[in-house]
Amino acid sequence: MVTKISGCAQEAQGLVAATGLAARHIIRSGEWTGHTSGTAPHYVQGNLVILPAALANDFLRFCQRNPKPCPLLAVSEPGDPRLPRLGEDLDIRTDVPAYRVWRKGELIEEVSDIRHLWREDLVSFVIGCSFSFEQPLIDAGIPLRHVQEGRNVAMYRTNIQTVPAGPFHGPMVVSMRPMSPANAIRAVQVTARVPQVHGAPVHLGDPAQIGIADLQKPDFGDAVAVLPGEMPVYWACGVTPQSVVMEAKPEFCITHSPGKMLVTDLLDGELAFS
Amino acid sequence: MVTKISGCAQEAQGLVAATGLAARHIIRSGEWTGHTSGTAPHYVQGNLVILPAALANDFLRFCQRNPKPCPLLAVSEPGDPRLPRLGEDLDIRTDVPAYRVWRKGELIEEVSDIRHLWREDLVSFVIGCSFSFEQPLIDAGIPLRHVQEGRNVAMYRTNIQTVPAGPFHGPMVVSMRPMSPANAIRAVQVTARVPQVHGAPVHLGDPAQIGIADLQKPDFGDAVAVLPGEMPVYWACGVTPQSVVMEAKPEFCITHSPGKMLVTDLLDGELAFS
Repeated sequence: MVTKISGCAQEAQGLVAATGLAARHIIRSGEWTGHTSGTAPHYVQGNLVILPAALANDFLRFCQRNPKPCPLLAVSEPGDPRLPRLGEDLDIRTDVPAYRVWRKGELIEEVSDIRHLWREDLVSFVIGCSFSFEQPLIDAGIPLRHVQEGRNVAMYRTNIQTVPAGPFHGPMVVSMRPMSPANAIRAVQVTARVPQVHGAPVHLGDPAQIGIADLQKPDFGDAVAVLPGEMPVYWACGVTPQSVVMEAKPEFCITHSPGKMLVTDLLDGELAFS
Repeated sequence: MVTKISGCAQEAQGLVAATGLAARHIIRSGEWTGHTSGTAPHYVQGNLVILPAALANDFLRFCQRNPKPCPLLAVSEPGDPRLPRLGEDLDIRTDVPAYRVWRKGELIEEVSDIRHLWREDLVSFVIGCSFSFEQPLIDAGIPLRHVQEGRNVAMYRTNIQTVPAGPFHGPMVVSMRPMSPANAIRAVQVTARVPQVHGAPVHLGDPAQIGIADLQKPDFGDAVAVLPGEMPVYWACGVTPQSVVMEAKPEFCITHSPGKMLVTDLLDGELAFS
């Protein structure tokens, strides 16, 4: 189904709050368990991975070695549910709309609060997400088809290998946005300025070159058309670390549910260099 | 004929001077009338167009309206052969290795000194040239095939129309460099930082989209191979203003000879913003 909505698709159909803090308070209260696309415009959102301390150092090294798919915004102290760099009044156990709980790589349950699962050895990783560069692209006059059509962005497993660390290894996942060559050139410039939200694209053009067999069959998200005269543009995707963690089958792990992110107090503009 | 030279092809086969000023003194003496590729590394070089004052205002507006193909580095006062913004001891009548003299769009002669042709109404325009962004590309680890093969870059007339001013109008000429998609992405970032030497590319990929019928038949310069897995990347080219001036058939005009540029005292780094 294609829903055409002029302007920002998300505003018509999701939670909107004035600030990251206001969004987190609504989410903490349990009133909103849905996606955060368009929530608190201009505030940075992040992907969440929570791991036991025994694995946290390996995962930290994995992120350091793979900054494009895993741009780390913050890492917590073990057992501490706060992330003061991302917001003063922030509790990682309650402030995400929905969490996925994994044991040995198996999805066990989806919950909206993880206080009952909290352990003194858990470390939280918050990783930049492409929501923070989509608004600058739109602001630069570059239309994004999946936003116009109210769909999730198309994501693909590639043959680009991440640099391994400990048990963490596997292919990079990319998101794809079709655009004219002139807009692709401008999109490189706009996104190169935000390395903490994946930065410049990793590939342009031919999908086969990075191991994508069929653009119309994404591994995650929704397919969108690539029109004549357009080229597909591929960015490293924050689904990569989740995919890598699932492959490593840690004894225990918690992530956010897809599209239901942590909303922080950072402004998108704070991530850009000029 | 393909001449393969490792490293910088130009150093082995052209004039090399320590500074722009030193290069101009050698050229002024008449000792060097050849190309300036690789001459005075890291010093900005420029394309030259000299027009009678009656046409100069139209041409100035043309450059203002078409900054990508016509990035103006300096404009002289009428009748003044100096360009102090580009070098203290600079005489535009003697400091270019070779000049082309045109009347009503016809090439009349090629000379190495234009003092005998100088008039009190002549205005000099110096326009940025892609030499100034090729070194940063090479420094960024992006190989340029025409440099490796000791050839001139391939240039093409396109169907991209310039914005007209007075008698000046016509298609944009582009230069093309083949590279991997990953290098194309980095090349956008590197060249976006130097808007005074054409800036970011104007097109990527399919040549037909900008009216190029056959990449192996450039309108100017030498063809180079586009290898499997590479994409052609197109930049606005300083041949555009020359092409446009010739179309306008001014009663009198002087340009530099192709590849034989004005070497200035500006450093390439002075043109970059960060």
